[in-house]
Amino acid sequence: MIKVGIIGANGYTGFELMRLLASHGGARVVYASSRSMAGKCVAEVYPTLYGAYGDMTYADVDTDKAAECDVVFACLPHGESAEICGRLADAGTKVIDLSADFRYDDPELYESTYKKEHPRRDLLEKAVYGLPEINRDKIRGARLIGNPGCYVTASVLAVRPLVQSGVINPRTVIIDAKSGVSGAGRKADVAYNANEVLGNFKAYSVSTHRHTTEIEEKTGAVVTFSPHLLPVKRGILATIYCDLMPGKTIEDADGAFAVYENEPFVHYTARRLPEIKWAAGSNCCYIGAISEQKTNRLIVVSCIDNLIKGASGQAIQNMNVMFGLSETEGLPLVGTHL
Amino acid sequence: MIKVGIIGANGYTGFELMRLLASHGGARVVYASSRSMAGKCVAEVYPTLYGAYGDMTYADVDTDKAAECDVVFACLPHGESAEICGRLADAGTKVIDLSADFRYDDPELYESTYKKEHPRRDLLEKAVYGLPEINRDKIRGARLIGNPGCYVTASVLAVRPLVQSGVINPRTVIIDAKSGVSGAGRKADVAYNANEVLGNFKAYSVSTHRHTTEIEEKTGAVVTFSPHLLPVKRGILATIYCDLMPGKTIEDADGAFAVYENEPFVHYTARRLPEIKWAAGSNCCYIGAISEQKTNRLIVVSCIDNLIKGASGQAIQNMNVMFGLSETEGLPLVGTHL
Amino acid sequence: MIKVGIIGANGYTGFELMRLLASHGGARVVYASSRSMAGKCVAEVYPTLYGAYGDMTYADVDTDKAAECDVVFACLPHGESAEICGRLADAGTKVIDLSADFRYDDPELYESTYKKEHPRRDLLEKAVYGLPEINRDKIRGARLIGNPGCYVTASVLAVRPLVQSGVINPRTVIIDAKSGVSGAGRKADVAYNANEVLGNFKAYSVSTHRHTTEIEEKTGAVVTFSPHLLPVKRGILATIYCDLMPGKTIEDADGAFAVYENEPFVHYTARRLPEIKWAAGSNCCYIGAISEQKTNRLIVVSCIDNLIKGASGQAIQNMNVMFGLSETEGLPLVGTHL
Amino acid sequence: MIKVGIIGANGYTGFELMRLLASHGGARVVYASSRSMAGKCVAEVYPTLYGAYGDMTYADVDTDKAAECDVVFACLPHGESAEICGRLADAGTKVIDLSADFRYDDPELYESTYKKEHPRRDLLEKAVYGLPEINRDKIRGARLIGNPGCYVTASVLAVRPLVQSGVINPRTVIIDAKSGVSGAGRKADVAYNANEVLGNFKAYSVSTHRHTTEIEEKTGAVVTFSPHLLPVKRGILATIYCDLMPGKTIEDADGAFAVYENEPFVHYTARRLPEIKWAAGSNCCYIGAISEQKTNRLIVVSCIDNLIKGASGQAIQNMNVMFGLSETEGLPLVGTHL
Repeated sequence: MIKVGIIGANGYTGFELMRLLASHGGARVVYASSRSMAGKCVAEVYPTLYGAYGDMTYADVDTDKAAECDVVFACLPHGESAEICGRLADAGTKVIDLSADFRYDDPELYESTYKKEHPRRDLLEKAVYGLPEINRDKIRGARLIGNPGCYVTASVLAVRPLVQSGVINPRTVIIDAKSGVSGAGRKADVAYNANEVLGNFKAYSVSTHRHTTEIEEKTGAVVTFSPHLLPVKRGILATIYCDLMPGKTIEDADGAFAVYENEPFVHYTARRLPEIKWAAGSNCCYIGAISEQKTNRLIVVSCIDNLIKGASGQAIQNMNVMFGLSETEGLPLVGTHL
Repeated sequence: MIKVGIIGANGYTGFELMRLLASHGGARVVYASSRSMAGKCVAEVYPTLYGAYGDMTYADVDTDKAAECDVVFACLPHGESAEICGRLADAGTKVIDLSADFRYDDPELYESTYKKEHPRRDLLEKAVYGLPEINRDKIRGARLIGNPGCYVTASVLAVRPLVQSGVINPRTVIIDAKSGVSGAGRKADVAYNANEVLGNFKAYSVSTHRHTTEIEEKTGAVVTFSPHLLPVKRGILATIYCDLMPGKTIEDADGAFAVYENEPFVHYTARRLPEIKWAAGSNCCYIGAISEQKTNRLIVVSCIDNLIKGASGQAIQNMNVMFGLSETEGLPLVGTHL
Repeated sequence: MIKVGIIGANGYTGFELMRLLASHGGARVVYASSRSMAGKCVAEVYPTLYGAYGDMTYADVDTDKAAECDVVFACLPHGESAEICGRLADAGTKVIDLSADFRYDDPELYESTYKKEHPRRDLLEKAVYGLPEINRDKIRGARLIGNPGCYVTASVLAVRPLVQSGVINPRTVIIDAKSGVSGAGRKADVAYNANEVLGNFKAYSVSTHRHTTEIEEKTGAVVTFSPHLLPVKRGILATIYCDLMPGKTIEDADGAFAVYENEPFVHYTARRLPEIKWAAGSNCCYIGAISEQKTNRLIVVSCIDNLIKGASGQAIQNMNVMFGLSETEGLPLVGTHL
Repeated sequence: MIKVGIIGANGYTGFELMRLLASHGGARVVYASSRSMAGKCVAEVYPTLYGAYGDMTYADVDTDKAAECDVVFACLPHGESAEICGRLADAGTKVIDLSADFRYDDPELYESTYKKEHPRRDLLEKAVYGLPEINRDKIRGARLIGNPGCYVTASVLAVRPLVQSGVINPRTVIIDAKSGVSGAGRKADVAYNANEVLGNFKAYSVSTHRHTTEIEEKTGAVVTFSPHLLPVKRGILATIYCDLMPGKTIEDADGAFAVYENEPFVHYTARRLPEIKWAAGSNCCYIGAISEQKTNRLIVVSCIDNLIKGASGQAIQNMNVMFGLSETEGLPLVGTHL
């Protein structure tokens, strides 16, 4: 049994790790810390955890204690995460960081995006980008994973094969993304009060969202990125517009997406465009595409569950790969639909 | 044109007053104050107010300024409200208080319920309970109105006629009430974060909710009161259980509800039990009833929009009565359904 | 008092007409017909209408009866509408048609889009496109109005000024539109069962939706149009992407939108991008815009209530203009926000 | 591997069986039939099943084929189910019937409730009521299970221990139950159109609902039963009112619920009243209770996921018991919370 630690376990991605790991056959949460809720019973904050975790309490943050685990998932704010993960990595513990701190290849891009110096450039170089579908081999031997977030996962899985195969013009990519409200986390903020969210829909951080540079780095495209907030809890749907390269057709797009043929968690559905309810509750990404003759555009739709494939499920998938377990262990192949 | 002032205008009941009064033919908001948002444009906080209020800003709380209005609506927390309303009433301004401070006949009941001394017992005696359907004559001459809240309005309109006409046993009343989340106000609180509310339903303050004593005072019944939180924004539905008095039948209940025959805002729908979408968006209360032979119980369902008939609409109805306007002026007879 | 008739009154746009007209100071519904619900009480189908319409029943469809009204609103399926509206127009009754049958300038475009011959090409020529903000003068003298629908209103109001003023390249327009589910109407269809819609989000009819040609005709742009279904009842938000013309900037866009400066129902909010809750419940359209330097793109967001400014409210606005009433009579300037 | 068949697999309980069994370690769906969708790919109807079921299609209903399975789950309408289950049982196949046909001890009660003759009274006698927490031993040896439904499971688990231990007066029980809309199934019906459900809440079949007699038979109480429809997809919350027997207190209630101390799927949370989000997504039932001194009433709140513990999860729990597997195999102990 792999001994798992979670730092920042009281937020939604921490909860989701505990929820999913409760039915994982090869790993077990032995340490869950939270600065703000240390000493509280996990089932007081999330009563649904009672059946699986009983009276377990949130520990105080203690790097030494965490370092005794076989692997630690860090669910901390950007910036803060790098230091704590760094200390754990120095101690030889395997670390999967759900923040943005170890995702970038280019440290300058990180620093200009997050407007701060990276505290552990030394480790950033060694960290592995945790998107198994594009990086599986490196993840196998990795000790420190930068686990991609929700918008990026949905976007990169859809755009990267098209750029790499030369099917689309990488300078024409527009990603109109819509996310459920769990993406904003467990916040006491009027903007996320149910009264302000239910029945509403809005764009936010259009063209200025921090995840844009990560999408650009991982796809090689220039991207106009427009996030929107959906009045649902889980799920992301990204509608992606781009120009086909001269002479390229929708069949070439189909060919590019054949790269996912044997992936357990990525399903290309061709002309049938996916919906959030296909993906929500599962670790799967669904991708569909159509083309428009009059404009020579390709339109791609990509869906994931933002908390699973877009965060905690992907982190577990990375753990499975790192430890040589079956990649699908503990991860739902089927969504809840309802 | 009646000059209207609103104190505490930035909350949801204050917003709702501004929204409804924007299409009122005989009154106009000339003063809207907010301690926390003084100086801010009302349309910055509620952009939908832009078309009707343009660049109007929230004023700082200033009793002298407010006293220049013909009538002031107070949307303040319980306790705090009595003092400010008191000063306005002393200055001769007509006041409609949306808090609980001037609703009780019995000052001791107020004090034991709200666990504080009433700062203006002198005025409490003179204040008029603002439920037009049971108190219209007194409201006409009133200078200070205690405007009933949402749970109480839905409950009292349904239970009082049954008690008064001797149709039910007043010692057997159970009110299982379900409210939309706007009843909790505009709060930065994780408990009302959309993620915690969407898809959820819960009971809260069962048997201990403060509005219980107000319902008991206004109906003469002993009441078990169980509030619940619905994942909708607007509306209250109360399912009410009570024993029929020996020899009484559902037809006697029909007779008791005939008291509302000529009311513009209360509709008795007999055996067809009302739904929230009938009432939401309107100033109407819908009431239906059935009886159960095997238990000799009467089951009554009552619905209102908690922000309109349960707060701001009722306050405007009171203003209309106080100033001799048509009682329905500016108040929606038809709900949004959708 | 203008005598109003409604044909097809049992659907959502018919309901919305009845709801809004209940508080209109200059018009009154005297005739509401429905083939499928003839003889039924309107308050049986929509109980919230009870307070305003009492025991009024749906009439059977009877063109002679309808022709006695001063104006008839037709809420009928495309194709079917042209014949009935035609007969009413022949009889000299003013007609506002909410279907697509009298919206096109180019009859061939209608016929290729709707895949049927237009039964009244003679009238199509004389019909006036009912978007008051671009066609007010012609509406004044009109006898037959083709009332634009929801997607088209949100799109045309946002795109047309930019094309007309030469600010954007009209061959680069992408409209990613998201609509509430009331846009699909009152249907018994598993696809719109609450279980399939709640918590879901999907694209549909991408690049093939019939309203595309109408948007293209009214804006002069070539449009990629992608509709999506939101799990909300009311509201449309369109996110629009286009290339700025060489040398043009966001300030030129601001200048183009100055055309709406004195419009009561269209508000340009510059860099603050609108949200559905600003518009829902009102007859207003909100438009905001930003530009992106790296791609030289303009991104415009436009919001309306699909049932009000996108259908029934706009139809009443047209009636107000046709009959010389105040254009805002009976139309909400403020949305419900909650 | 247990070979599982599902009849009526296209509805929501059939889907939920397929979803849950996809991660069951000891059973595998080999046959899924649907009269209306025979020949269609299961992933065409529920795309989220694609990852686990690939190209599997719905079979036509064929009792011989089904009889080759080790166990068949029947998801058929009441009445229709008895005949098909009967034929399978005659053939020696183990059957778990999710309809009401094999739930009653008293055939007359079934017949008066469902207004039809029971076609297989012979089997009704031998069938075992599939509520493991009260009937585990009999389920072990059973060949035909009548699997209780959602309202009944939530009600019986909460009321039965109180009646059996003499804590409450069984003639005073009121169950005010609120259910998510998946309880109504996959229907093409305007009443369940998202527009009619979102933002709404209503009571229905108050005092006349068919499940009342089943609750009464299994608890020994006389029950006033009021179902309500929540605008959520999953979950039931029942608020239950009853009189404490003279001399009995809330501590006696605590004692009665101690019967569930070692149950993996029933959690008694004492004074903390459960919420739907604790149970939704899991196979657990949460029960809490408080007492009210002034009325001597006990108020109990019980929550389950209507599709899991209230239908398909419970059916799998029964299968696990029947086949001697771990009772929790394949069943979620933790809900989704979000």
